Amino acid sequence: MHHEQHLKSSDTIRDIVIGMSDGLTVPFALAAGLSGAVNASGIVVTAGLAEIVAGSIAMGLGGFLAGKTEMDHYRSELKREYEEVEKVPEVEKKEVMEIFADFGLSEPLQQQIADEMARDKDKWVDFMMRYELGLEEPHPNAATKSAATIGLSYAIGGIIPLSPYFFISSANTALGYSCIIGLLCLFIFGYLKSKVTGQPVWSGAIKVAITGALAAGAAFGIAKLIGAH
Amino acid sequence: MHHEQHLKSSDTIRDIVIGMSDGLTVPFALAAGLSGAVNASGIVVTAGLAEIVAGSIAMGLGGFLAGKTEMDHYRSELKREYEEVEKVPEVEKKEVMEIFADFGLSEPLQQQIADEMARDKDKWVDFMMRYELGLEEPHPNAATKSAATIGLSYAIGGIIPLSPYFFISSANTALGYSCIIGLLCLFIFGYLKSKVTGQPVWSGAIKVAITGALAAGAAFGIAKLIGAH
Repeated sequence: MHHEQHLKSSDTIRDIVIGMSDGLTVPFALAAGLSGAVNASGIVVTAGLAEIVAGSIAMGLGGFLAGKTEMDHYRSELKREYEEVEKVPEVEKKEVMEIFADFGLSEPLQQQIADEMARDKDKWVDFMMRYELGLEEPHPNAATKSAATIGLSYAIGGIIPLSPYFFISSANTALGYSCIIGLLCLFIFGYLKSKVTGQPVWSGAIKVAITGALAAGAAFGIAKLIGAH
Repeated sequence: MHHEQHLKSSDTIRDIVIGMSDGLTVPFALAAGLSGAVNASGIVVTAGLAEIVAGSIAMGLGGFLAGKTEMDHYRSELKREYEEVEKVPEVEKKEVMEIFADFGLSEPLQQQIADEMARDKDKWVDFMMRYELGLEEPHPNAATKSAATIGLSYAIGGIIPLSPYFFISSANTALGYSCIIGLLCLFIFGYLKSKVTGQPVWSGAIKVAITGALAAGAAFGIAKLIGAH
């Protein structure tokens, strides 16, 4: 089928992208900022790891709760649609007709569609869920898996540009290496992200790297400013 | 219409929720963690503000780029659908029929729908975009507005629980006040977020507050552990 060309990335890849986008950027930028104010790698590492732990939990658990909420929402809407189809079938049929009226189909045809669809209640409800409410049934274990993927991606992304501070006690010296590693990782990540989402790869890579550079530069500037007082 | 009960939060509220969820959690948890390792509010404030700046830029610019990508994606798919409707109308008609076959409509009715829909190309393409590909047209200025809203929400959320460290030089003392303020804000935020998204409000408030407490506790633990070495 020619339509398989329509690229759509999987949920796992989406979660890795979500976690790693922020994971590669924020701890890196925080470390850079702190290096502008204190020259002790020990403090930078402590703050960096605290940030990574906090960020992983906030994003991971956030992803988990969002997934649970999506599931609850789907179930309550599904229940409501079944009730409505049972209690006010004529109203629901009108809603089916309205959907097709919007696409310019004639009224007799709208009526025919609504009548035929009403024969199978499960499929009718499925239609209303998808096309009236725009809701797809979420996977049952999606929330847990999504939480773990986002949290882990954030942590991995965060550790890499922080690593020079583990080995070099002068934060100012480590900063140089961290910038090289961090921006390189962001560039590669931006390239791969654009590739899987079917976007132009080089401009994608540059955009992601610039975001990281801006965040690190701004964090460095603000920390330097406060440190001077 | 009874269907207006189906609650759907606006894009702005969604962006505020995205920015504030992480903004209220991560800088608060980082500050708590750092307080476990160094007792100087000056360093906590420097790190906290560096984090807020980095996080706002990463999330805001991230939101902006995601919005732009969404727009580019929509436009390229729209162009492709118009080309397909022009070049291979019979294939596209088959796709319309397949959509309705899934909902149990009879073949003559599928054919009739496909034929009627093919009369108006704009509406036909609109139908394929929405119901085959699940794509809605994004607002033209959505990306910029979304970036500003997410970034600002992150910054506001971040500043509030950090404020005690501005006034109290002992980070250990400030930590107590920060926890009270931070958890209270998370609780209120969780309540309001659940309210606008139509979820149970008290359990929503508790979930959000627990996420923040876990993130802060874990950051505190890891910083204490490293600080001891």
